[in-house]
Amino acid sequence: MKVCVIGAGAIGSLFAAHLATVTDVSVLTRRNEHAEALNQHGLKVSGRHDFTVRVTAVAEASELPEFDLGIIATKATGVTGAAASLAGRFPGATIMTVQNGLGAEEIVRAQGSWPLVSAVTFMSGTKHSDTHVEYVLDTATWLGPYADTPYERVQEIAALLVDSGLKAEALPDLLPAQWSKLIFNATVNGVSALTGLPHNEHFAAEENDSDLGRLVHGLVDEGKRVAASAGVNLHDDPWEMNVLATKRGSAHYPSMLEDVKAERPTEVELINGALVREAGRHAVEAPLHGALYALVKARESSYS
Amino acid sequence: MKVCVIGAGAIGSLFAAHLATVTDVSVLTRRNEHAEALNQHGLKVSGRHDFTVRVTAVAEASELPEFDLGIIATKATGVTGAAASLAGRFPGATIMTVQNGLGAEEIVRAQGSWPLVSAVTFMSGTKHSDTHVEYVLDTATWLGPYADTPYERVQEIAALLVDSGLKAEALPDLLPAQWSKLIFNATVNGVSALTGLPHNEHFAAEENDSDLGRLVHGLVDEGKRVAASAGVNLHDDPWEMNVLATKRGSAHYPSMLEDVKAERPTEVELINGALVREAGRHAVEAPLHGALYALVKARESSYS
Repeated sequence: MKVCVIGAGAIGSLFAAHLATVTDVSVLTRRNEHAEALNQHGLKVSGRHDFTVRVTAVAEASELPEFDLGIIATKATGVTGAAASLAGRFPGATIMTVQNGLGAEEIVRAQGSWPLVSAVTFMSGTKHSDTHVEYVLDTATWLGPYADTPYERVQEIAALLVDSGLKAEALPDLLPAQWSKLIFNATVNGVSALTGLPHNEHFAAEENDSDLGRLVHGLVDEGKRVAASAGVNLHDDPWEMNVLATKRGSAHYPSMLEDVKAERPTEVELINGALVREAGRHAVEAPLHGALYALVKARESSYS
Repeated sequence: MKVCVIGAGAIGSLFAAHLATVTDVSVLTRRNEHAEALNQHGLKVSGRHDFTVRVTAVAEASELPEFDLGIIATKATGVTGAAASLAGRFPGATIMTVQNGLGAEEIVRAQGSWPLVSAVTFMSGTKHSDTHVEYVLDTATWLGPYADTPYERVQEIAALLVDSGLKAEALPDLLPAQWSKLIFNATVNGVSALTGLPHNEHFAAEENDSDLGRLVHGLVDEGKRVAASAGVNLHDDPWEMNVLATKRGSAHYPSMLEDVKAERPTEVELINGALVREAGRHAVEAPLHGALYALVKARESSYS
């Protein structure tokens, strides 16, 4: 199964490097220098694993070789462009999305009729350079079929990921896991972006009325009511995910915090926006998530 | 009526300069150089008015001359220190507080039994230097008796302010005005501090679901429910105050936004905290203001 990874940030680089140890991998980058550096030096993984592999990288989608599996590993804000760059080609390929939030699959579907696989990933990495990514958290990627994609295809992809040294699991229905992560991300990313706090112990503190953990718990409970109204049984409790994550040594800097600090567009639409729209669709109140969504969007509009 | 102004920021400087045109005014500053500069150069007002006056300034409360009216014009975070510096002295004086939010009077009361006058001010100024303040908005200051302070005292002070060229009005009950400004400030300052937006047209935009004005309107409505449960009939509708203010040419930078940008303690406790505590006292739900309060406090705890 030949693979193409579209987008070589931390997550895309981790997929590309590991998969390149077991199959042919092409990488589509945004910048030409990035592609050239990868072709010249290969891609180095440090941290949990330690190796360097050869990959074929291009900065123009028209130069991509054929592939059987395309992994769109851009940020949520890059999915439209990534899918559009593949439109009308690679009819035999399956496309997998791994974005935070909900709705990436629909964006890809609008650009073509490839079979789609949904994924959520809990692994994390730090990109030290265009050709070096550190594998930080070796937690799993979960995959499920989207629409009428055969489940066997999902199982094949999960097996390939496991062969490559990553943790992965195929699930017949990804929604419970996708929604657990959606509620977790909408809450933690939104609060972090607005307060400037990394995901630290404040997020689990509930002793006093004005402790941040009370708000976080309220946001999680509200998200769970939206999930229930959408008929989704969560795979993990987002509050437990939150408490666990805050106990993990050094505090994680959520991407939405990094985005607002750098005055970049955030993933708020596919995360907080998606949750608020689901609440509206199922006629359930979500005032706290509505507030986070409006505040983060307003923060974006304050960029100079 | 001899006056002492404690705190010479923009508001304190505007009070001190105008009152010094009709009576003896002493000023208590935090920094010694500030007092020296005022003694040497006087205090200049530009903008709506244009004059320079002599004031007597000291940086040590022990050096203050006697006075009949003390105006505590510090930020909410400075009231405790200001009142403590007067404790045990000036038994004949009336003390007036002009802080945003609720609760400054109780803080002063804890330091002495002076008759107290509550005030809210809608004037605004910009301090260009220790000896120069620009009078920007010449809107009124409203005054009311606190506890058993005779209303005649309030009327005398209002008359003195008007004599000095400022706009002022005595009200037998200040709570309706204080609460109108409380709800306005909790909403506008909180949203501004979290989003980085000055008080601009976004605060009144309500066309789309995620428009900031919808959240602002929800916050105002929630605040009005708290006021109603506390038995307060608002003097002005905070939503109309908000819409009007956003139409006033250049957008105002709320002090809470300036505070978080400079990583200074904000007035959140006496503004948002006061509103949330009132909600709790009267057993009315205030989830949106609770969220703002927790988020701004968390923002403070993110300071490096």
